[in-house]
Amino acid sequence: MIMMKYSGYKGKVLAINLTTKKTSALEVTDEFARKYIGGNGFAVRYLFDMIDPRMDAFDVPNVVAMMTGPFQGINSPTAGKYYMATKSPLTNGYFDSVSGGFIGAQIKYAGYDGFLITGKSDKPTYLFVEDGKVEFRPAEKIWGKLTGETQEIIKEEVGDPNLCVSAIGPAGENLVRYACVITEYRAAGRGGVGAVLGSKKLKAIAVRGSGTNEVADPEAYEAWMQWYKDEAKKVPGIAVGLPTYGTPALVASIGKMLGAMGSYNHQTEFFQNWENISGERLKKEFWDKDTACPACPIACSKVFSAKSGKWKGAISEGPEYETIYSLGSMCGIDDPGAIIKGDSLCDEWGMDTVTYGVMVSFLMEAYEKGIITKDNTDGVEFKFGNDDAMIAHIEKTAKREGIGNLMAEGSLRAARVIGGGSERFAIQVKGLEIPGHSARALRGMALGYSTATRGGSHHDPRPTGEYAGASDRKAVEGKAAWVIGTQQMTAIGDSLVNCHFLERLLGFTLTQKWVDMINPVTGFGYTLEELTTVAERILDLERAFNVRTGIRRKDDTLPRRFLEEPIPEGPSQGMYTDEPTLNRMLDDFYALKGWDPKTGIPTREKLAQMGLEDVADCLTKSGISC
Amino acid sequence: MIMMKYSGYKGKVLAINLTTKKTSALEVTDEFARKYIGGNGFAVRYLFDMIDPRMDAFDVPNVVAMMTGPFQGINSPTAGKYYMATKSPLTNGYFDSVSGGFIGAQIKYAGYDGFLITGKSDKPTYLFVEDGKVEFRPAEKIWGKLTGETQEIIKEEVGDPNLCVSAIGPAGENLVRYACVITEYRAAGRGGVGAVLGSKKLKAIAVRGSGTNEVADPEAYEAWMQWYKDEAKKVPGIAVGLPTYGTPALVASIGKMLGAMGSYNHQTEFFQNWENISGERLKKEFWDKDTACPACPIACSKVFSAKSGKWKGAISEGPEYETIYSLGSMCGIDDPGAIIKGDSLCDEWGMDTVTYGVMVSFLMEAYEKGIITKDNTDGVEFKFGNDDAMIAHIEKTAKREGIGNLMAEGSLRAARVIGGGSERFAIQVKGLEIPGHSARALRGMALGYSTATRGGSHHDPRPTGEYAGASDRKAVEGKAAWVIGTQQMTAIGDSLVNCHFLERLLGFTLTQKWVDMINPVTGFGYTLEELTTVAERILDLERAFNVRTGIRRKDDTLPRRFLEEPIPEGPSQGMYTDEPTLNRMLDDFYALKGWDPKTGIPTREKLAQMGLEDVADCLTKSGISC
Repeated sequence: MIMMKYSGYKGKVLAINLTTKKTSALEVTDEFARKYIGGNGFAVRYLFDMIDPRMDAFDVPNVVAMMTGPFQGINSPTAGKYYMATKSPLTNGYFDSVSGGFIGAQIKYAGYDGFLITGKSDKPTYLFVEDGKVEFRPAEKIWGKLTGETQEIIKEEVGDPNLCVSAIGPAGENLVRYACVITEYRAAGRGGVGAVLGSKKLKAIAVRGSGTNEVADPEAYEAWMQWYKDEAKKVPGIAVGLPTYGTPALVASIGKMLGAMGSYNHQTEFFQNWENISGERLKKEFWDKDTACPACPIACSKVFSAKSGKWKGAISEGPEYETIYSLGSMCGIDDPGAIIKGDSLCDEWGMDTVTYGVMVSFLMEAYEKGIITKDNTDGVEFKFGNDDAMIAHIEKTAKREGIGNLMAEGSLRAARVIGGGSERFAIQVKGLEIPGHSARALRGMALGYSTATRGGSHHDPRPTGEYAGASDRKAVEGKAAWVIGTQQMTAIGDSLVNCHFLERLLGFTLTQKWVDMINPVTGFGYTLEELTTVAERILDLERAFNVRTGIRRKDDTLPRRFLEEPIPEGPSQGMYTDEPTLNRMLDDFYALKGWDPKTGIPTREKLAQMGLEDVADCLTKSGISC
Repeated sequence: MIMMKYSGYKGKVLAINLTTKKTSALEVTDEFARKYIGGNGFAVRYLFDMIDPRMDAFDVPNVVAMMTGPFQGINSPTAGKYYMATKSPLTNGYFDSVSGGFIGAQIKYAGYDGFLITGKSDKPTYLFVEDGKVEFRPAEKIWGKLTGETQEIIKEEVGDPNLCVSAIGPAGENLVRYACVITEYRAAGRGGVGAVLGSKKLKAIAVRGSGTNEVADPEAYEAWMQWYKDEAKKVPGIAVGLPTYGTPALVASIGKMLGAMGSYNHQTEFFQNWENISGERLKKEFWDKDTACPACPIACSKVFSAKSGKWKGAISEGPEYETIYSLGSMCGIDDPGAIIKGDSLCDEWGMDTVTYGVMVSFLMEAYEKGIITKDNTDGVEFKFGNDDAMIAHIEKTAKREGIGNLMAEGSLRAARVIGGGSERFAIQVKGLEIPGHSARALRGMALGYSTATRGGSHHDPRPTGEYAGASDRKAVEGKAAWVIGTQQMTAIGDSLVNCHFLERLLGFTLTQKWVDMINPVTGFGYTLEELTTVAERILDLERAFNVRTGIRRKDDTLPRRFLEEPIPEGPSQGMYTDEPTLNRMLDDFYALKGWDPKTGIPTREKLAQMGLEDVADCLTKSGISC
């Protein structure tokens, strides 16, 4: 057993090689833990060091990090989660994805802070990790199975109905670039981590352990948990909105009140039929029960089902707001039954609902504009509102059949191939499709998506503060500082591997409250200043990872539609961020970050301040001026 | 019909989109033809403009260029060839591959200077191009077939036993990173063009046409052909060596006389049993008949077969010298029967013999050193000399079965995954395995491989001049200029899409004789100065393509073994190029090229001199200082 000064760690990350079937333990030192916290921070450091930037996401040496932070396995109400990261087949850059699931705690109980999975099995395999032992088990008979059945079969095989299993579906096996990883009904959804596991012929990872995880100051930690539970009751969104409606509550506030819910592939952002897909209607007509991540008192997850209508019988844990946007308003579909059906099928086949829905809406627009025709769509009328097409192509995409083979590539690659000016309306940044938080109605998200490590992600920058009015959504002045603050907050949240809804209690940017949460568990004795440095270190490392793959200021931008076409109607009518305005915000952003304004490369000075001289050296050796 | 001032062109390159099944013709202007000639020059310009550097080789928008030069279809004795280029799945950089085959002429006769193939079919397809017409034909029933049978089935389907067909084998279908394209028995061998076609589900391309190709000055061209035939008789290698023994003649000269034929994965370069695999023995005991590229009087190809022994019945067109090196001396195998068998199987399954053999020798060394064990090799004793293992794993690699799944990745990626310090003896540069021309015994090849666009290729720099004594193989002074000259020559040769053996008559670097060959056909009225500029323009564009994918000076290097371990025995005992010496030559090289000495990026000044201001702008916009 490894003795560490700090708590919340097992002191060991296990490197697992699917080619040689060997494993080796990497020691987590106190210094490393304090510098990188866990989750996001651990993963980006390992991946920066391990991944040759010139290798593809599907290259056999690519690495998938499956990580925990100090909060897993201590019954934290906000940390029933685990963390995955890899080089993404959608963005070619660093990509992480956080998912609900008790498997994070089990990794700790098995004696590890995380896994680094590399190589490639020759045959379908799943991993069974139990305490110190790793088994590479044959998965031929579950290859091709849906994610739910896969988990069931493995639980049965191990003989443990409570076993935690993270699995990919056929989409991952077939290298759909946005395939996800499913644990119970939660998804490490975005950016194609599931496809990278598929390329490694790794069907699933099952973990259980008999150990524990410890906190530095149990009394202070108990006090913090009590504080959290009390505070949570005071914030209406957390106390009422999320428990009652889940994230679908946002349809009314974003879709109706703000008129900022992308619709018809962002030809508009005001969905006339918003009421049909609202949280209120879902609760009233489709709700079955609430569910929750382990130990979470909020229980924002809902099981919905269609009790009547065309999609009667459809049932899903979800859909979340993002899915109502992507499969619903974006595709011009207002029947919650179809969205519930699509949500469950995406989970079962194992692909990201956001990218899938935006991919469909992109093709619908291309079809209606005549850029593609029935010759390309296997004869299907690919028009907005065609819920049959949206549903039918989930399986076709997962199997790469017919036009599903193109849809498996994501909208950027599809636009590059079908041409006809369609890249203008491919709603993506750096290859990742944008979710349901408007880049036109929220200035912070315009800058945020442009600069996010992951591209079109609302978990790098966060829209929540602008919704809450903590930052004026129309402001340009001071917006760069705000966005940086949100990104620092998510970098820390993802390193702790905690739920982002914490932000409503702790602050949308880094605050002393974040420090007060971390110290009792880890014993770091962080100041806010040190924590901010940790966040910047992680973000600069992510950027350095991306810079080595060729990402520069030129890539920090938005789809042309967002830069040139104002929102045409509704409460946010007329809003958008034009290119000069985006450039002003970008100039501010790079100046504050200490990144070169021309290239967007972190300067040597900045990297040195963050204790990343070796990263600067590495860039220089790679012929990149920093 | 497009009227051009210059001859040797049809004035049209056809863009073929496998996703939308649409085609569109791009006009070849006189200016474009004069600036880029054809083949290599055309392809690198199109690919630089078309390929997003951040996308993978297997990304659906990747492009495969299939090109001709002005010499195809005019019965030239040295141009029975065609040219392919793409972004390589081995090197991630620009990669071209020239193959023998009458299909080059047929492309001209069909009315095109070449094809640009992009997108991805949902189902296995082959292309049938006849005059102005393109058919996308179903290939389900030939998917999985070997390359020979594939060509036969398509010929039968079209009802034309003389139809020219370029096809991939199962290796290409299964994305073996060094899968090739086979036309008759010739291979566009290196760098994985076949895998890119496989990723596009394109099994084959069949072309025939009823047109012609014209030359500018028929009389002068006739005179040149006569001059060529007369000259060819005066050069012993061309007049006697190649016609009699083919390239296996080199086993005696390189292997025995020079002691510079990599053996046992370059643990030595003197293969004690060289005589067993020599051209003389092959001719005496294994020769069946001579064959030739269309219209070539040299007929360097041989059909060899094993008349007795363990591999009795094995028959192949080939093996060439490179294959005798890779499947033979590198693997410690001295039975030509095994090499013939391996050669034919690699052709049939559709993979590059050089990379495959070096991949096997790499694993043999890793196995003997205990870095991998029987646990990793499906129980096979992977020792040097095990010809059964070498043969058996061709099919396993093509199908990605067992350790074949790792072997399909090439030695660099394999080394990264198996670790144990094995990258030191992965005999590759930039991901491409080095062929049978010593980087230790030939100083020009040390610098040449290091700087070659393709990495470990002997068709960017050329060893021939050093063998012939035209450049002192031990010299360091002046070597950079020599290597640049050879690279300029191959850039022009590959743009003309001509055989490299021309160099023995026209000069190992660019000379007036090259000019005299080109002008009668094209009517360009080139001077040697202008031709040299064309060569530099093409080479700078190749470098710019690679620079955008992250290639820099750091990548211009050799395997550690070559930089640190002298040849241990034989006539070249003690020779190698250490790192300081390589760096001296690199400094000279970049200075002469006008590339930045720190990064290896072409300077803006140099690019402007080459008429590539737009390329400099493109690099700058990408955040790359030039």
